[in-house]
Amino acid sequence: MPKKVRVAINGYGVIGKRIADAVRVQPDMELVGVSDVISDYRVTAAVGMGIPIYCSSEDKAPEMGARVPLAGGLHDLLHGVDVVVDCTPAGIGAANLAHYREHGVKAIFQGGEKHSLTGHSFVASANYSTAVGRDTTRVVSCNTTATVRTLSALKEAELLSRARGVLIRRATDPWESDHSGIMNTVVPEARIPSHQGPDAQTVIPDLDVVTIAAKGSHVQNHAHFWTVELTREASTEEVLAAFRAMPRIALVRRSDGIVALNSTQELMRDIGRRRGDMYEVALWADILTVKGNELFYTYTVDNQAVVIPENIDAIRALTGESSAVGSMRLTDQTLGVRQDFLDTASHESQEQ
Amino acid sequence: MPKKVRVAINGYGVIGKRIADAVRVQPDMELVGVSDVISDYRVTAAVGMGIPIYCSSEDKAPEMGARVPLAGGLHDLLHGVDVVVDCTPAGIGAANLAHYREHGVKAIFQGGEKHSLTGHSFVASANYSTAVGRDTTRVVSCNTTATVRTLSALKEAELLSRARGVLIRRATDPWESDHSGIMNTVVPEARIPSHQGPDAQTVIPDLDVVTIAAKGSHVQNHAHFWTVELTREASTEEVLAAFRAMPRIALVRRSDGIVALNSTQELMRDIGRRRGDMYEVALWADILTVKGNELFYTYTVDNQAVVIPENIDAIRALTGESSAVGSMRLTDQTLGVRQDFLDTASHESQEQ
Amino acid sequence: MPKKVRVAINGYGVIGKRIADAVRVQPDMELVGVSDVISDYRVTAAVGMGIPIYCSSEDKAPEMGARVPLAGGLHDLLHGVDVVVDCTPAGIGAANLAHYREHGVKAIFQGGEKHSLTGHSFVASANYSTAVGRDTTRVVSCNTTATVRTLSALKEAELLSRARGVLIRRATDPWESDHSGIMNTVVPEARIPSHQGPDAQTVIPDLDVVTIAAKGSHVQNHAHFWTVELTREASTEEVLAAFRAMPRIALVRRSDGIVALNSTQELMRDIGRRRGDMYEVALWADILTVKGNELFYTYTVDNQAVVIPENIDAIRALTGESSAVGSMRLTDQTLGVRQDFLDTASHESQEQ
Amino acid sequence: MPKKVRVAINGYGVIGKRIADAVRVQPDMELVGVSDVISDYRVTAAVGMGIPIYCSSEDKAPEMGARVPLAGGLHDLLHGVDVVVDCTPAGIGAANLAHYREHGVKAIFQGGEKHSLTGHSFVASANYSTAVGRDTTRVVSCNTTATVRTLSALKEAELLSRARGVLIRRATDPWESDHSGIMNTVVPEARIPSHQGPDAQTVIPDLDVVTIAAKGSHVQNHAHFWTVELTREASTEEVLAAFRAMPRIALVRRSDGIVALNSTQELMRDIGRRRGDMYEVALWADILTVKGNELFYTYTVDNQAVVIPENIDAIRALTGESSAVGSMRLTDQTLGVRQDFLDTASHESQEQ
Repeated sequence: MPKKVRVAINGYGVIGKRIADAVRVQPDMELVGVSDVISDYRVTAAVGMGIPIYCSSEDKAPEMGARVPLAGGLHDLLHGVDVVVDCTPAGIGAANLAHYREHGVKAIFQGGEKHSLTGHSFVASANYSTAVGRDTTRVVSCNTTATVRTLSALKEAELLSRARGVLIRRATDPWESDHSGIMNTVVPEARIPSHQGPDAQTVIPDLDVVTIAAKGSHVQNHAHFWTVELTREASTEEVLAAFRAMPRIALVRRSDGIVALNSTQELMRDIGRRRGDMYEVALWADILTVKGNELFYTYTVDNQAVVIPENIDAIRALTGESSAVGSMRLTDQTLGVRQDFLDTASHESQEQ
Repeated sequence: MPKKVRVAINGYGVIGKRIADAVRVQPDMELVGVSDVISDYRVTAAVGMGIPIYCSSEDKAPEMGARVPLAGGLHDLLHGVDVVVDCTPAGIGAANLAHYREHGVKAIFQGGEKHSLTGHSFVASANYSTAVGRDTTRVVSCNTTATVRTLSALKEAELLSRARGVLIRRATDPWESDHSGIMNTVVPEARIPSHQGPDAQTVIPDLDVVTIAAKGSHVQNHAHFWTVELTREASTEEVLAAFRAMPRIALVRRSDGIVALNSTQELMRDIGRRRGDMYEVALWADILTVKGNELFYTYTVDNQAVVIPENIDAIRALTGESSAVGSMRLTDQTLGVRQDFLDTASHESQEQ
Repeated sequence: MPKKVRVAINGYGVIGKRIADAVRVQPDMELVGVSDVISDYRVTAAVGMGIPIYCSSEDKAPEMGARVPLAGGLHDLLHGVDVVVDCTPAGIGAANLAHYREHGVKAIFQGGEKHSLTGHSFVASANYSTAVGRDTTRVVSCNTTATVRTLSALKEAELLSRARGVLIRRATDPWESDHSGIMNTVVPEARIPSHQGPDAQTVIPDLDVVTIAAKGSHVQNHAHFWTVELTREASTEEVLAAFRAMPRIALVRRSDGIVALNSTQELMRDIGRRRGDMYEVALWADILTVKGNELFYTYTVDNQAVVIPENIDAIRALTGESSAVGSMRLTDQTLGVRQDFLDTASHESQEQ
Repeated sequence: MPKKVRVAINGYGVIGKRIADAVRVQPDMELVGVSDVISDYRVTAAVGMGIPIYCSSEDKAPEMGARVPLAGGLHDLLHGVDVVVDCTPAGIGAANLAHYREHGVKAIFQGGEKHSLTGHSFVASANYSTAVGRDTTRVVSCNTTATVRTLSALKEAELLSRARGVLIRRATDPWESDHSGIMNTVVPEARIPSHQGPDAQTVIPDLDVVTIAAKGSHVQNHAHFWTVELTREASTEEVLAAFRAMPRIALVRRSDGIVALNSTQELMRDIGRRRGDMYEVALWADILTVKGNELFYTYTVDNQAVVIPENIDAIRALTGESSAVGSMRLTDQTLGVRQDFLDTASHESQEQ
């Protein structure tokens, strides 16, 4: 039996804790521990799940140690792992990377860091193979991940000419919505294009894409609205087939009662997803419209969860697993990722 | 001195009460009365302002009369007026129109009614002249009014090729946000194009426009995001000049602290607007971006107020005033409409 | 091995689907099926979990049957069960009860029905024994359940003289927050006392309690604020001990980072609760204050989940299980109910 | 004709700009200028109204002067005034006070500052006379002002024994709701009593009052819920009469359609209030309930406006006007303050 990949997570926040959950259900991975500087209920809950806790900063260790049992410092954790997934707040990646390199540990960063930090940005379905064996990569942000998934579906089907998107982002994350939200307003981003368009090009350089972004007065899930010029006239069925052929895109329908962002959240709770997470881009099949060579569509993205399968695949790519298809299949199977949430056949088998 | 146009308003809700305010400050109009079936605080407040109240429905008259002094029924009101502005809930326009015709009264409907009811849809800057002397017209909805104003600005400058817009609508009106709102979600409209695109074509038939709409979790003002293909490459300054040349579009800037929908609402209160109303489309000059022959821009629309000046102009058009420019200028002057909210010179003069 | 209690659920909405989940993990119960008239994603998801679906209304059967496999009509379902839990919308209980009686099936109603329908209202910790062997009972609403749990804790400790509470209710349920919410407002209930105070007295007749209620602009969890006159001066520790002695009350602390309603929701996701449900009343130990013989405290209630354990206990009581303590212990163990969410010892054992 | 009191305002934010508006309509006051350090749209709008602008900080003067015409520095402004109203952010009052004293200028602070800064806290109807001729006072916060107005109404009627209140505060102010809000949650204050109870006692020392506070997910107006022990059994009419006898409390009714916080906001717009401001406490006459010697009632407070009339009265008190009744009457008349928003007689006269 091959040795399991030993994984550390630095930063146990919104993304970090979800990656921890996901690593723990991978047959070929072992979660050695998580490191952070906080010691509130979020970390105490991790202790309750039996996850070893490390402290990322020496001066926080006394305070943290007084509240939770510490297995050591970050350097101790790095000592015994193959890969670290960095989920610390944006902007401290460069300092962290130096630290990881000292320990000879491969590192995955999140979309809050710049592409230049790693020189490689990752979306599994688009460029897994170019990450195989690398020392570092960066899983792009939730908005960019969804953008790349859907546009690469059209690209693979040789349908994509150019894409213009409006991204209505969630205001803040649910757990911190008690102090950092926006209320009764919409806040347009300062610049067009917003960063997601150029960021998608770090994964697929020749995409012709422009994004306009704004924050809405809601706490969970982004909503994306796209106008796409196709390479040719196409039928609605051709376009739906292109999306169906791409992993981690699930078609939903208003006719099933899924009429808004909150419906998809309820659906995730109904199908028993841990934390109510949706790893898939949920794209409305019955709103999607094709007119000649123009395509219009809308989907919603779970900003907390969509990048989780990508991080799992990135771990495999860096540590030498060469099959993108094999990795994605394993990830999707262990996480219960689907292409049709209401396919009761596949559902039943997943539940068992 | 020419006789004042005698105006009735049927339906004293969000739009009706604002048109009443606006008619009362026109030197060439007289508000003869308003008609409704409700008798809550909104109508009592109208009584307090000395507005004669009529009852639109005979069976509501006893209940209504018990609470507010009634000047008569709707038919009494219609008897003595030149024009009625119908602001009743959508869908009862046809029945109302028959009633108005019996009384030989010209009639203006709102965007909730179908174009076919009147055969003419109105935005002052786009097609005032075609309404002159007509018996009826229909002022298009807030979203469509803003769409027509901005796209016709580009069209007049011979810059418009085709326009694709995403309209994030407010959820409900502030006064009824205690029972009909949407919370923590975004609700995409069922169909693409949403009705606003085709509706704009009832005013300017040859517009190449597609709109995608959704409701956001906020109560006031819409936010529109446009991707426009220009007829040629153009400079940012040319485009801004095109917008500046169009009445009822006001440029705003993030650099002035106007960074979101709520900023424009605060600004309206700061400059002393009655009810905090914004009659102008507030378009962000420093978000607007031109790339080659593509133009991207964002603006916000006060869903309660943007159609008010259009209704005033429609009254003049139907009753024979032939000068679109003259009517719009008078309307804008009496309502304090501006093209630059922070032009202190124009501001000061308005305040006096 | 004793025969399992055969349970039917009529109405597969917010409460019905949670009771279905809970019944399925009880060792002494069998979920025979659920009945409804809808066939949207919520029911399709139930099909995916292998739950037999019945149709509650003959005229809906064709439409419903076209979308999901139907096991029969409600009468078929009632034919083979011991107890039906009625989770249909408020107000049709009387008609339903007649139907259940025809089939000789015991029945549990929810708090939307009047006390007089069953003559017995139920909160397990307060009056389990009086329901043993009855044909019907009614599990009181989420707000009343929380009120009874906390006040009966004080009563048991002989500390309760009189209680005055302000209940800030959630506006609507998350899954329907796309059309029925309240935004940017607070809506006071029309009457004082609100119905929850008198409703608590249907469970504990001699409670001296008055409640004032209002709806807040949030979608999940109620917040209750109490002023209680104690029978005597008491220490904070005595009061906390009284609450600790009562099942289904969990103490939480701001010092653990649990500072608001959304913190408790995040905590439920962190500890892996299905649907993120919180069955416990979460009471802030470090906000609670005693001054002489006055006690002030605040807690939050998951409006979707708090009544679920009560329904499970009610099933046992009606079907003859005589031990309140035994039933509650089994319910709480199978659902993972806790008295301290951050007790890592108990947590770990639950996770296994 | 007596010399007008020369007033300066330091801090042109939510409160400062409203006091500026109010001073400008007082026949016995002159607004000499306002001072701030910002130069965004809010200050530009003040320039547009012809208000002289001063800069509060020397190092901000160049940046500010580049955007708006500056009349000088704060010290220049202080040189020529009798009273300064300090509306700067909480916590810099002590430093400011020293500055004001150097210039021999009387000073009014807001509720963000501590009582000890001035040794006197002010609510006009409760203790105007004790402020007459003082050098400084502090107008208590919006929540405390409303608390004092309503409880002193009961006290004057010799009905007040003790009062326990739950205050559901707005989350943030509308103009800054794009970054500092709370969403989909309720945030209880850390301590009971919240500061408003003790703060009310700085105005009326012998009040027996305890307040519990929390923030709600709405942007405008507080909602207060009170349980009061009366000195004796009383009728509803007696209690309503006590409230009617107190200036700046206006009774509202659900039966007039005023059913929630947003209704009162709409009402203020309907009656033409500048900025939509409500200076009065709006107390629901038909929710208020008396049971024996217990009184329960609910009202709403405009957090941006309720202290404005108090600041105007405080200016008069400090500068020697000895008649509380005279000052309040003049303030209320100039601002259009009412005791019944729907009294059409009084309304009409105000409009003229």
